[in-house]
Amino acid sequence: MSEKEISRAVIRRLPRYFRFLGELRDAGVEKISSQDLSLIMHVTASQIRQDLNNFGGFGQQGYGYNVKYLYDEIGKILGLDQEHNVIIIGAGNLGSALAGYGNFANRGFIVKGAFDVNPALVGQYIRNVPIMPMSELPDFIEKNNIDIAVIAIPKTQAVGAAATVVSCGIKAIWNFSHVDLEVPDDVIVESVHLSESLMRLSYNLNRVKEGEEPDTGN
Amino acid sequence: MSEKEISRAVIRRLPRYFRFLGELRDAGVEKISSQDLSLIMHVTASQIRQDLNNFGGFGQQGYGYNVKYLYDEIGKILGLDQEHNVIIIGAGNLGSALAGYGNFANRGFIVKGAFDVNPALVGQYIRNVPIMPMSELPDFIEKNNIDIAVIAIPKTQAVGAAATVVSCGIKAIWNFSHVDLEVPDDVIVESVHLSESLMRLSYNLNRVKEGEEPDTGN
Repeated sequence: MSEKEISRAVIRRLPRYFRFLGELRDAGVEKISSQDLSLIMHVTASQIRQDLNNFGGFGQQGYGYNVKYLYDEIGKILGLDQEHNVIIIGAGNLGSALAGYGNFANRGFIVKGAFDVNPALVGQYIRNVPIMPMSELPDFIEKNNIDIAVIAIPKTQAVGAAATVVSCGIKAIWNFSHVDLEVPDDVIVESVHLSESLMRLSYNLNRVKEGEEPDTGN
Repeated sequence: MSEKEISRAVIRRLPRYFRFLGELRDAGVEKISSQDLSLIMHVTASQIRQDLNNFGGFGQQGYGYNVKYLYDEIGKILGLDQEHNVIIIGAGNLGSALAGYGNFANRGFIVKGAFDVNPALVGQYIRNVPIMPMSELPDFIEKNNIDIAVIAIPKTQAVGAAATVVSCGIKAIWNFSHVDLEVPDDVIVESVHLSESLMRLSYNLNRVKEGEEPDTGN
């Protein structure tokens, strides 16, 4: 089946399905009904059937979904069947945490190098990832066929770093800096704005303290 | 004006307004028109007027919004005018990055302590935040009036840690573990699922490589 037939709303829910199906697969579960998946994921069974029936007739009544098949198909749509070479700009605590995150390698995201302006960090390693000076960035991106740049530096430097990696041909930026990066239309930016997440937490904490329902986004 | 009059959809957009208004305030900007804010935020001017008119008549034609007033009012709604005491479970790279994140203190989130199962880390400090053994968690939460627990440990340990902090009376969890935590209804969980964010990036990178438009969520 073609990915184009699947609606954007479904696509946006796929990472969460992928996570739960991966856990089921790792636990040795071969088949699961929409009812059981509904209980685990806290989504209605009818929503699950609607979403997963996009992947063909693998959810027949009394049979259940084939966990591994669905996991693999969703992985393909998400591009997780391919390897992506990654660099990390900023070898501080956050950059180090991301460089050392084992799940990324499992999903085909291979961290090839880290870059930092701090001379004290250059020449060191995060696990087996070398930390290099920013001056080596353009050459490294070209030679190592880098797809994705992770930006984990303060926002004052992030705009410049983004411009540099884009000029070197990077097509995807995973942005942890507290700024919306402006890039050409054919470059992807996925931002993780931690402060905004913390503000949602704070807002809901206040609601609960006042005896109101939290806004869970549902 | 009462917060209850503002719709949830608007509330969900407030953290982003708060961020941009804070930058304008820091840059010394006192007033801004909906048109100018529209250009900076890449949101239509009519959306901005609709959202911000919730805060009273401070956006009159030819006058513009009072940046500081709006920033403060939005901050109040988000609970950022109050201090929150925070602990961090997990003093690895991610926990250390979060403990050292200056923006949190600026917004009233005070990191009081970090906890780790690793005896080699216990007794050390992340900046001025002490790292303590998990056994001291209940006592510390009670004595220090802790509001928020940050969970920055592998998912296999996260469920147990969440149960512990909830049993100690914590009402808000900021979860970085790759698992949906099950908590009582009056406890807030705000999860940052980094893998899901990376999957969205991967999906959109593939689309762009195939010459299609990325799905920006708009």
